[in-house]
Amino acid sequence: MTRPTPPAPAEVRRARVALSMLVEPGHRALWSSVATHGPVRVLEGLLAGGFEGINSELQRATEARRAWEDPHQAAERALAHAHRVGARVVVPEDDEWPRQLNDLRRLCTEGRGEFTRHAAPPLCLWVRGPLRLDEAFARSVAVVGARAATSYGEYAAREIGYGLAERGWTVVSGGAYGIDACAHRGALAGGGVTVAVLACGVDRAYPSGNANLFDRISEDGLLISEWPPGSDPFRHRFLIRNRVIAAATSGTVMVEAGARSGARQTLRRARRLGRAALVVPGPITSAMSVGCHEELREPETRLVTGVDHILEEVGRLGADLAPIPRGPEHPRDRLDPPARRLVEALRKRTPLTSEEVAARAGVPLDDTRRILPVLVLQGHATTHPDGGYVLAPPAADPPRTHHP
Amino acid sequence: MTRPTPPAPAEVRRARVALSMLVEPGHRALWSSVATHGPVRVLEGLLAGGFEGINSELQRATEARRAWEDPHQAAERALAHAHRVGARVVVPEDDEWPRQLNDLRRLCTEGRGEFTRHAAPPLCLWVRGPLRLDEAFARSVAVVGARAATSYGEYAAREIGYGLAERGWTVVSGGAYGIDACAHRGALAGGGVTVAVLACGVDRAYPSGNANLFDRISEDGLLISEWPPGSDPFRHRFLIRNRVIAAATSGTVMVEAGARSGARQTLRRARRLGRAALVVPGPITSAMSVGCHEELREPETRLVTGVDHILEEVGRLGADLAPIPRGPEHPRDRLDPPARRLVEALRKRTPLTSEEVAARAGVPLDDTRRILPVLVLQGHATTHPDGGYVLAPPAADPPRTHHP
Repeated sequence: MTRPTPPAPAEVRRARVALSMLVEPGHRALWSSVATHGPVRVLEGLLAGGFEGINSELQRATEARRAWEDPHQAAERALAHAHRVGARVVVPEDDEWPRQLNDLRRLCTEGRGEFTRHAAPPLCLWVRGPLRLDEAFARSVAVVGARAATSYGEYAAREIGYGLAERGWTVVSGGAYGIDACAHRGALAGGGVTVAVLACGVDRAYPSGNANLFDRISEDGLLISEWPPGSDPFRHRFLIRNRVIAAATSGTVMVEAGARSGARQTLRRARRLGRAALVVPGPITSAMSVGCHEELREPETRLVTGVDHILEEVGRLGADLAPIPRGPEHPRDRLDPPARRLVEALRKRTPLTSEEVAARAGVPLDDTRRILPVLVLQGHATTHPDGGYVLAPPAADPPRTHHP
Repeated sequence: MTRPTPPAPAEVRRARVALSMLVEPGHRALWSSVATHGPVRVLEGLLAGGFEGINSELQRATEARRAWEDPHQAAERALAHAHRVGARVVVPEDDEWPRQLNDLRRLCTEGRGEFTRHAAPPLCLWVRGPLRLDEAFARSVAVVGARAATSYGEYAAREIGYGLAERGWTVVSGGAYGIDACAHRGALAGGGVTVAVLACGVDRAYPSGNANLFDRISEDGLLISEWPPGSDPFRHRFLIRNRVIAAATSGTVMVEAGARSGARQTLRRARRLGRAALVVPGPITSAMSVGCHEELREPETRLVTGVDHILEEVGRLGADLAPIPRGPEHPRDRLDPPARRLVEALRKRTPLTSEEVAARAGVPLDDTRRILPVLVLQGHATTHPDGGYVLAPPAADPPRTHHP
């Protein structure tokens, strides 16, 4: 799975890195300038004090960091740092770029507020791990949820992570405590691929309690980030990061979420991107399921209770359809309705004549006379020594497969 | 609430009782004959061996019971029995007949199988209790579910029964063990009206463990049934009975249900009748919530976690809208996005210059210079004796309302 990446021209790669560091990722005006004019020209333009393709908002938004450090030097420093920590940068010009991230353009044109302004596709991704990005995400599902998960949510996340991995699906999450960590761990236990999309540098173990987990992921899966190695996990970055989780995968499963959980934002972005928005329910008595239940009241969200349901939504058409659960069958279930009614009308001890049974059951007498002997043969009824019919004792049930 | 019922002509009432006993309730052909020709003429016609308005299927379906006992005598016997046990019969010609039951006609024309054939509106209802039928059902919700409920489901049913009663809604259920009994008991505890729709006579305590509950319901609520007093609770009768629960109420709430629970059939009928089909979720690890989760995967079913959600669906338009749950607010939540970013970019101990903060946060320098002093005034940041800004210690949070 680890073919070498054909290099993009070094100048393009370095310009993208420099631009990505001038402003927080997903910046709408920067992304569209780059899409129109290419990264090298936009960087030159910004440094030269603007050209007609760059609006003043963008000029202003990038001002503070341009003044702080020369963008070319900053990019060189970031690339050297990445090299030291075993990370590489992947840009849209590379073969392994996951094209589905470009769908994020759709989020830019709708909605309002800060995170719509930071909803554009990434300019580049920093990556640690032995896999190609496109292959890791080709069959992938995001599993997200609360950090303060309950043992119920942790169990569900582990089961889902394990089951998806076992079926050959990549499990994508955010590397946080709680649901995220359990989903990653479940996938590793299932012998599969897992990707942690971080809100800090791929060399930073944040949260530090997951340091071992990140080590394991960097060996068998991928750690990825839009921020260069060494970057801090500022709080607002988690929300900007979430759009990558939503866009890179075929669907997002939310396992446990309080009323204000950030996972709800990932789920909503998945829904707006046309990805499957899937939610695991929980007890109505649990504060950690309040966000799940609120999202399940939205029209385009689907309830899932396990991997079968998830694959039914994200799996390829026709394959992976979830079986409908059925309880155990009772012997009488196989009877047609009049026969079942006749059995119901029989008594355990008192024998009844055909006429009595017919009247009690409301089944025509000639049908009753025809069906009752069949029920005797099938073991549902017996004839009484004094005449008439009684219900067969339970011993007439089909033999059990276990010993008492 | 207990006005005397203006009597229907005694002959009509008796004919309906006689007809209702000739075949299991909801019989489609019988109901439409009665709708066309009136109960007195249909009864006469059946006894006379048919007339042009009665098809041979109906003739045949009623044959066994006609042969067993003279229908007029059977009706007199049932009415006398009802009188002895303090029950009365209500017919569609009575003022207190709940007209919404006539919607059941819709179920007759679609679907297939035994219970579509028995989906017609009732011919009459046997009633025990001090209330008018129409008034008891005017603002009513059905709460149904598994007999083998868990303590979680029992808790939920009790809470919902209590809350609906407290808000002036009648709680309708089937009088069974588990969810049904808890819903009835919750409503009684809430000081409200509850109605048990039975699959046996209103004088029969089935199941016997609920005998005390039935006594209390007959004092403050209603016990109702389509079968005359003394009738047995045959298994098929529960499914026929369910359509009355679905049709009489504004919505059905399913609390816990295994994969094969009969409650699912009640919910589906409510859905097909255009009533609200509402389901309480549960842990995915509980077999008693499997049926709930399957139904929640159907498009016209709504997830509810409590009375507010239920009333949002069945309450009158504009009233009873459920509040959206919110977690506790953090002091930083009230900041606008650039200010929040600047706070994130500050350090706890190391002071940073405005330029450093601007670069870390990616906020334009002039904005940063304007906002930082405001953040100091608001208690989010402090100035350092050596110059620069640091994050304010947690003590700067708004004062707590409780003592440590």
